[in-house]
Amino acid sequence: MEKYVYLFDEGNKDMRDLLGGKGANLAEMTNMGLPVPYGMTVTTEACKKYYLDGETLSDEVKNQIIDNIEKIENHTGKKFGSTENPLLVSVRSGSPISMPGMMDTILNLGLTDDIAASLATDEDSTRFIYDSYRRLIMMFADVVKGKGKEKFEEILKSFKEKYETDNDLELNAQDMFEITKESKKVYRKLTGEKFPEDPFVQLLEATEAVFKSWNNDRAKVYRRINNISNDLGTAVNIQEMVYGNLSEDSLTGVAFSRNPATGRDELYGEFLEKAQGEDIVAGVRTPKSIKELYEINTKVFEELENYSKVLEDHYRDVQDMEFTVENGKLYMLQTRNAKRTPKANLVTSVEMALEGLISKKDALKRVSPEEIDMLMHKNFSPEALKDAKELCEGLPASPGAVSGKIYLTVEGAIREAKKGESTILIRVETSPEDIEAMQYASGIITIHGGMTSHAAVVARGMGKCCVCGCGDIEIDEKNGILKIGDKVYEEGSDFSIDGSTGKIYEGILETIDPEMDKKFYTLLEWAKEIKKLDVRANADTGDDALRALEFGAEGIGLCRSEHMFFEKEKIFSIRKLIVSDRKEDRNKALKELLPMQMKDFEKLFEAADGKVLTIRLLDPPLHEFLPKKDEDIYELADNLGIEMGELRKRIDSLKEFNPMMGLRGCRLAIVYPEIASMQAEAILKAAYNVHKKGIKVKPEIMVPLVGDVNELRYLKQIIVKIADVIFRGTDIEYKIGTMIEVPRGAILASEIAKEVDFFSFGTNDLTQMTFGFSRDDAGSFIGEYYEKGILSFDPFKTIDKEGVGRLIRVAMTLANKSNKNIEFGVCGEHGGDFESIKFFNEIGINYVSCSPYRVPSAILTAAREELNED
Amino acid sequence: MEKYVYLFDEGNKDMRDLLGGKGANLAEMTNMGLPVPYGMTVTTEACKKYYLDGETLSDEVKNQIIDNIEKIENHTGKKFGSTENPLLVSVRSGSPISMPGMMDTILNLGLTDDIAASLATDEDSTRFIYDSYRRLIMMFADVVKGKGKEKFEEILKSFKEKYETDNDLELNAQDMFEITKESKKVYRKLTGEKFPEDPFVQLLEATEAVFKSWNNDRAKVYRRINNISNDLGTAVNIQEMVYGNLSEDSLTGVAFSRNPATGRDELYGEFLEKAQGEDIVAGVRTPKSIKELYEINTKVFEELENYSKVLEDHYRDVQDMEFTVENGKLYMLQTRNAKRTPKANLVTSVEMALEGLISKKDALKRVSPEEIDMLMHKNFSPEALKDAKELCEGLPASPGAVSGKIYLTVEGAIREAKKGESTILIRVETSPEDIEAMQYASGIITIHGGMTSHAAVVARGMGKCCVCGCGDIEIDEKNGILKIGDKVYEEGSDFSIDGSTGKIYEGILETIDPEMDKKFYTLLEWAKEIKKLDVRANADTGDDALRALEFGAEGIGLCRSEHMFFEKEKIFSIRKLIVSDRKEDRNKALKELLPMQMKDFEKLFEAADGKVLTIRLLDPPLHEFLPKKDEDIYELADNLGIEMGELRKRIDSLKEFNPMMGLRGCRLAIVYPEIASMQAEAILKAAYNVHKKGIKVKPEIMVPLVGDVNELRYLKQIIVKIADVIFRGTDIEYKIGTMIEVPRGAILASEIAKEVDFFSFGTNDLTQMTFGFSRDDAGSFIGEYYEKGILSFDPFKTIDKEGVGRLIRVAMTLANKSNKNIEFGVCGEHGGDFESIKFFNEIGINYVSCSPYRVPSAILTAAREELNED
Repeated sequence: MEKYVYLFDEGNKDMRDLLGGKGANLAEMTNMGLPVPYGMTVTTEACKKYYLDGETLSDEVKNQIIDNIEKIENHTGKKFGSTENPLLVSVRSGSPISMPGMMDTILNLGLTDDIAASLATDEDSTRFIYDSYRRLIMMFADVVKGKGKEKFEEILKSFKEKYETDNDLELNAQDMFEITKESKKVYRKLTGEKFPEDPFVQLLEATEAVFKSWNNDRAKVYRRINNISNDLGTAVNIQEMVYGNLSEDSLTGVAFSRNPATGRDELYGEFLEKAQGEDIVAGVRTPKSIKELYEINTKVFEELENYSKVLEDHYRDVQDMEFTVENGKLYMLQTRNAKRTPKANLVTSVEMALEGLISKKDALKRVSPEEIDMLMHKNFSPEALKDAKELCEGLPASPGAVSGKIYLTVEGAIREAKKGESTILIRVETSPEDIEAMQYASGIITIHGGMTSHAAVVARGMGKCCVCGCGDIEIDEKNGILKIGDKVYEEGSDFSIDGSTGKIYEGILETIDPEMDKKFYTLLEWAKEIKKLDVRANADTGDDALRALEFGAEGIGLCRSEHMFFEKEKIFSIRKLIVSDRKEDRNKALKELLPMQMKDFEKLFEAADGKVLTIRLLDPPLHEFLPKKDEDIYELADNLGIEMGELRKRIDSLKEFNPMMGLRGCRLAIVYPEIASMQAEAILKAAYNVHKKGIKVKPEIMVPLVGDVNELRYLKQIIVKIADVIFRGTDIEYKIGTMIEVPRGAILASEIAKEVDFFSFGTNDLTQMTFGFSRDDAGSFIGEYYEKGILSFDPFKTIDKEGVGRLIRVAMTLANKSNKNIEFGVCGEHGGDFESIKFFNEIGINYVSCSPYRVPSAILTAAREELNED
Repeated sequence: MEKYVYLFDEGNKDMRDLLGGKGANLAEMTNMGLPVPYGMTVTTEACKKYYLDGETLSDEVKNQIIDNIEKIENHTGKKFGSTENPLLVSVRSGSPISMPGMMDTILNLGLTDDIAASLATDEDSTRFIYDSYRRLIMMFADVVKGKGKEKFEEILKSFKEKYETDNDLELNAQDMFEITKESKKVYRKLTGEKFPEDPFVQLLEATEAVFKSWNNDRAKVYRRINNISNDLGTAVNIQEMVYGNLSEDSLTGVAFSRNPATGRDELYGEFLEKAQGEDIVAGVRTPKSIKELYEINTKVFEELENYSKVLEDHYRDVQDMEFTVENGKLYMLQTRNAKRTPKANLVTSVEMALEGLISKKDALKRVSPEEIDMLMHKNFSPEALKDAKELCEGLPASPGAVSGKIYLTVEGAIREAKKGESTILIRVETSPEDIEAMQYASGIITIHGGMTSHAAVVARGMGKCCVCGCGDIEIDEKNGILKIGDKVYEEGSDFSIDGSTGKIYEGILETIDPEMDKKFYTLLEWAKEIKKLDVRANADTGDDALRALEFGAEGIGLCRSEHMFFEKEKIFSIRKLIVSDRKEDRNKALKELLPMQMKDFEKLFEAADGKVLTIRLLDPPLHEFLPKKDEDIYELADNLGIEMGELRKRIDSLKEFNPMMGLRGCRLAIVYPEIASMQAEAILKAAYNVHKKGIKVKPEIMVPLVGDVNELRYLKQIIVKIADVIFRGTDIEYKIGTMIEVPRGAILASEIAKEVDFFSFGTNDLTQMTFGFSRDDAGSFIGEYYEKGILSFDPFKTIDKEGVGRLIRVAMTLANKSNKNIEFGVCGEHGGDFESIKFFNEIGINYVSCSPYRVPSAILTAAREELNED
């Protein structure tokens, strides 16, 4: 007979697939000798069987549960369903992968009218037992019967209104008794049946309800978003109740072995006196800091601190613990590896590695590239903050700084975000139903709730900026307005929020780049020691390049030379160049541009300081440079001494039906070789000048959009001729490469490779042309493609391994055949995408080039890939 | 010692590489016993040696020439340089591949003052000998010294003016003597030296000049245009002179063994009395028809007719012969396979095969697909001709009917043609310098010259419509005007010309499709017996389909279902469909469209009459259907009951940056599945209805622009569902296929192939996306690409075998792996391009689909490919 139920002393932490995370850890703590209320875990196999049996709890499972209740009775000396020393239990879900708040919990199970009456011996105990009983009825109606809590909360609210209070502690025993009575009536009304007085009926129905909750909508959404398999199933933990709301000497709390926001090595957490655990998570009352526990009960604090260390050493990770103090005795109700902010994860992982608790490799495995990426989040600039109008302050729940339009509803936040707006979702408190909107929003504000509330936990996980507990905000969801003091704001107003300080501002504020923690660079160093893939950065200016190198870039893999042209003075020259049909005007414009480009390139070579600097020749369609505003057209016509009408005609003649496949890239350089000459001269002279200053230079010139070897040959001879003159007598080594970004370039890679030192795959264009998707226009159908399951990913974000990736592989194989020494790089958006970097690493790409802010996470991704190989 | 010179009786027709075409045929005729003036051929090897030796005639070659002159003297009894019975010779080029008029000729070589004087015994002989001498001086100055003929022609002209005549026959002996004297003066003035009195100097310098003429500009252009290798070299034929201008009983002419315009089996040609051969080619006097020769000299006519038959039987091809009658004796000066009109070639080839002179396969090899294509040229409609204003009439030199703007200069015709204008080039007579302009022009008119003039020969070769000898036209090139009678026309005026009738009309005339000769269908049948590749047609209407099948199409390989939408009523419905955001409006529009599409499809199925009919679902970007004119927008807004402004906004929202890579093809069908449903229903119901009438149907539905198998799966289930209902209980077999036109479709062919019955390669789009060239925009750089040697062909005309072709091959290999029964077709423009068809045949494509007019030539191409395999 299969074993579907394990007592806590029968399991251990390695059995999480079978017992769920919570069950496995409860077993582990039990076996470690920690004070854990005794109980049993119904396995995930029982859950699977439940679904296989057509959502029926089999007699086999039922019997094992009932048998093990007897063992719990023997262990605790309490008796289930007895009025004397009754055993009350909690029933909680616990899946192999943590899904906080996604599934259901029932507390105080085992209470009946008789038992309640027998335990109600005085005012305190009466108040307590009926508070517990009414909660059981409410949770049972909600979880087992699916009738929600609202009707029951209304009863509580009506009693509190009687006392004009917001605090349920002010309700007395009689109130609780009556609330219980009312609750049973409501229960009957809602469900059409009496609340079950048989504890075993309660237990089995509750177990079944937990199994059922595995497939509730919010759990399914959560699993989809977090890529959790639907096949895992959940376990059910049935555990003796302990009561944080039993007496003045009772409390309940959540603690972290290290600070989950900053990573500081200190016991961190919060607790509520005379409360049950759910009160904290729901953020009903604002809890106290764990430090205050020291004042209230030093012994318990020290005991907790000790358990915290013991558990952290045992699990070799930061622990997130739930505890309850019942009548002054500490019980550990749960421990698990703590979710924490990216910063805290970085700090704790690096420190633990330095402490010897874990290895450097463990630290690298623990910090995800996504987290490193979040660490690069921006902050508001000090200047912006000086004049910023601060509206209110909440808890700094998840770091970052964003500005956006406020929305009070899930619908509003999603709708506007889909339009491309930056939105801030404001809710009284968030619930799992809100997670989709939280994903779409740029930032989140809640009015209730603390640092461990749903909003805070989820936002940190997502790396979203979040401020919690902003009690000063009053919202009127129906009318779409909110008030802060006297001021009224409509939905769509601009707010700025700082998730690191908890402050909320009016309007849009300028942001600046984040300062990196020292640990950040330590981790980067460790990553660099391990990784093989080079990570370079895209940088168009000297400043960009400096920043990129500071972030660890091993060179500049893509400098888009055209970006320099967009400055006022230069764009005027380039416009003259493009529209003029007189050679003397064109030559004049080129002469103006040459020194400007050269100066820009010199700054870049100085910044690169001996590292590779890859400069791409002019790439975009010419008409991107053309004036659109009347005054600009006028100025240009005037300077060229031609009529406005004539100039407009020339501008129009440069317009294209499909500019993405028109006169751009190397085609420009072939039609206007004088531009290529000017650019080559500017690059090579700049390199020479910087070299003369004693700074090493490694210039690489990259020819874009090559589809035929003749394109390359034509431009190469122009470049080589200039280099031969400028570099004569120096030892400067330079390379010429090409971007492979039209499919034909990949198909004919063998020929092209003979002529170049490197290929840089321009995966943006290669994706466009391989799919035949215009990035600018795909929006009109790609949504339908996701909805209809035609595409499961965004090929502009993550490389299409099957299609575009195959083409890249083919190109590499062909190129290697004709040029053993060729280097391969990637410089599209995909160069900074983790999934894509993994693929590039796997197929033997030598380097990726990405935005400076993505460099650290790309380095980490590359390192982790090597670790996976071990 | 290498043999650089062959006497005529030392060679034969198979030695054309060494002796050139003319030399080989002169040798052959000599050995056949035909009356050929004796001579020698200096080989192409001597020409190559000449260039290898740095453009010097080596002593070795010189000596062989001189030695062989002696042998000619022995053979003829005449002596070179002697005043008694002097040997005079012609020196003519003759390359392995005929390049008519491209290189130089010198006649009467060997004449000196002494010899001339000794031969001038009476008025007639004096006139003759000095006419010959002055021609020698002129040709020598032109060909050997490069000084042109103009100054010499001016002398002749001034003498003719004296007599107020246009006919040089009216000049007398004294005139010719004086013209010769003048010519020698001019010669000395132009060259700075005396005319060489040594015949051997004349001979060797003339030989060298012929070698040199191999690389003159017009020869190089000719070779480039006709893909003739520069390495062949030319031979030099040195042949005893015979004189068509010696006496009243002398004449010279050109004859064809069959009519080169119509193919009729009759001796055809023209001759000039008292003239040298060059007078005919230059079109100086208008010659007489060969039929008149019968009247003048029946014996010579019959002898010529006999040689014509002998030569045709010997060469098994139509012969183009030059002959001269000197004092009543016939000499054959040249024979070669005749260039002829496509029609003549078709007729003669089929007839010769029917006569048993050649095999069917030979006939197929002889008629090129290009010629078949020319046979499909249009004629003016009888209606248009009824009201047409006829301006004048010339010789019907090359068939076809075109309208276009007239230009009098090469520059004008090229410039305007490059702008996309249809142009007609009008020249007094054309010269080899004009061939580029003839290529650009749609049609050609000359004022002088006959059916075998330069213009006529070249135009027939190019398949250009051409009218020659329109003496009624007077042109004023300087002022860009021409006169016909009293009427004056400026350059740029619209003319229409009929190359089959020689008539010239004012304005633009409507054309109709040509009637096919019975021989045409005979040849097509022979081709079909041999070829393996299926040839289907692109046809969007029943009429198109009928025409295509008449032309031999084996099915309809592409019906573009959207073409039907462009009719007034339908476009209105489709516009409603696109811009409406109300489901009821959309459904209404679809309901309107369904019966209209169905009716169109029924006509197509009826026309196809049991042959395959492949219909492609809606393909182009939606905005192509949108109204642009204000009144259309107003009408649509009115019908939909929305504001103009609102409608404009919706129209704007459908505009795309890169429509070629936007919402089109199967993407449309996925975003608007109701359109795909409607189209599938219309196709399948139409097939069913026609099937019910007892007509066999083979419907194939083609999904365009597939890049991922899921696109196909999604649409396939829609189609299959509808087919299951409509075809229930019938035995109609239908196929579902896809177009492979985005590179990703090719790369993922293995997956896609599992879902379909056929792939149709959409090579237009595949070329666009593989190159990243927008067909609409590539014009801005592709010219530079040709000029700079980056591309050597137009990939939109001829398939890019290396790139796009490779992708097609890859797709076929992958597809065959997962679907053994899959069929492959091509339905881009390339499906009608001969070069491309060869490639498709070679790689195992099952069928091509091309425009109806290309079907016959495509069939022939496919057949000839099989013959090449033999």
